[in-house]
Amino acid sequence: MILINGKTEDRIDIADRGLQYGDGVFETIAYRNGIAEFLEQHLQRLQLGCKTLSINFEQIDTLRFEIDSVCEHLNHDNAVIKVIVTRGTGSRGYFSLNDSEPTRIISTHPFPKYPERHQTEGVYLRFCSQTLSSNRKLAGIKHLNRLEQVIARNEWDDPEIAEGIMSDPDENIIECTMSNIFIVESGSLYTPAIIEAGIAGVMRAQIIQLASRSGISVEEHPISRKALAAAEEVFVCNSIIGIWPVHSISNKHYPIGFITKFLQKSLAETAK
Amino acid sequence: MILINGKTEDRIDIADRGLQYGDGVFETIAYRNGIAEFLEQHLQRLQLGCKTLSINFEQIDTLRFEIDSVCEHLNHDNAVIKVIVTRGTGSRGYFSLNDSEPTRIISTHPFPKYPERHQTEGVYLRFCSQTLSSNRKLAGIKHLNRLEQVIARNEWDDPEIAEGIMSDPDENIIECTMSNIFIVESGSLYTPAIIEAGIAGVMRAQIIQLASRSGISVEEHPISRKALAAAEEVFVCNSIIGIWPVHSISNKHYPIGFITKFLQKSLAETAK
Repeated sequence: MILINGKTEDRIDIADRGLQYGDGVFETIAYRNGIAEFLEQHLQRLQLGCKTLSINFEQIDTLRFEIDSVCEHLNHDNAVIKVIVTRGTGSRGYFSLNDSEPTRIISTHPFPKYPERHQTEGVYLRFCSQTLSSNRKLAGIKHLNRLEQVIARNEWDDPEIAEGIMSDPDENIIECTMSNIFIVESGSLYTPAIIEAGIAGVMRAQIIQLASRSGISVEEHPISRKALAAAEEVFVCNSIIGIWPVHSISNKHYPIGFITKFLQKSLAETAK
Repeated sequence: MILINGKTEDRIDIADRGLQYGDGVFETIAYRNGIAEFLEQHLQRLQLGCKTLSINFEQIDTLRFEIDSVCEHLNHDNAVIKVIVTRGTGSRGYFSLNDSEPTRIISTHPFPKYPERHQTEGVYLRFCSQTLSSNRKLAGIKHLNRLEQVIARNEWDDPEIAEGIMSDPDENIIECTMSNIFIVESGSLYTPAIIEAGIAGVMRAQIIQLASRSGISVEEHPISRKALAAAEEVFVCNSIIGIWPVHSISNKHYPIGFITKFLQKSLAETAK
């Protein structure tokens, strides 16, 4: 099902700035066991993204209502809900008068069929050549300019490789193509700070909160390749996959450790 | 008039990767006095962009035919032709199977009504706070990830300011929001090299060629703010505006010099 500004349709005006310039933001929400997980957190990030881009998005209640309505029409217990908000249609050129209403697009998709062993046995990662460029203004938000991720994700097509690690131009690890990354060292949890590049994932925030509440020290801290190689545990996360332990990165192997398993369990309980 | 994959329509599938990720390229072509100016140069850059993004675009002859057909239907002597090529529709996620045909979108727009004095008396520029991030792979091509330009262009709404200068994170001047920039110093022409950031404009290439052929030394060279302040002449260019001399940047004034006028004249003769 697709709703565009509340109407059942599947096409948008080519003048929409979402197409013309990638001038908008999106959210990918897990609909699991009949619930749109962390919906409010997703909507908050969406609003933050609009604010950052000066998109005058005042239809948040309408959007929430439309998402509920889409969920009611879902035939499955599990699905992916993708929400896009663009600046709307406008005159040609980068300058925006902000006089048109933002475009709301809600679409549902089958839940991706990842192998169960990704959760239990962990996944294999590689390093991507494509870097994430630094842009303090755009860092954190989930905007529609995603060519760097597209290029990085298309560096490999081996289905055995679940994710690719992306770094900034100074070789600090930032995230993976579609997920955030955490490492465990001396019993503490570390994840790269999202200041100059990367997306501040909803699941990432959830894990930071879960760990803190459980008395696990969590720090947002630069992670070098050396620190990654020395890590005791590594995992990646996003709203759809939850937590995937990492069993190897290139030739380096990692055990699926206690903290990773603990967080997977805590997350499953939170979702109940 | 709008043609999408050869058909007269004005809407595209929301699953198109152009909207989902800005996964595509575009060209803005001046149709002046009944001619699509520098069409082959635009198509060459479009193809280079597709190649860079690994978009399997083999419909260049079809696209050329469609542009000709759109031109034949134009009622005015002057118009803007915008061409977008996206990777097409695809499954959800950054990974692209490249099994769908790229989407071709051709739209025509009224020629913008810039004041005549922009050409004769020159324009006023400002410096933008928004920087251009560095990405060697994406530099040069005219892809659809244009949030940096959108943010920069929306830093001002004073119609007296014609353009904004954008720099890389090291404060090297790269270009303006919608145009390339040249300076004249000791009778030689300089323009920033487009290696890490910026768009390699079709008009920029044309001016480099025109100048070289006329015996004017042209160099692609980093331009600092200091070099800009010390310049004898400054101008900006793109396919639509041609050449706009710059009469001031913030509080610094420039004369409209001999080389700028000479290139304006040469360009007008080339277009005949």
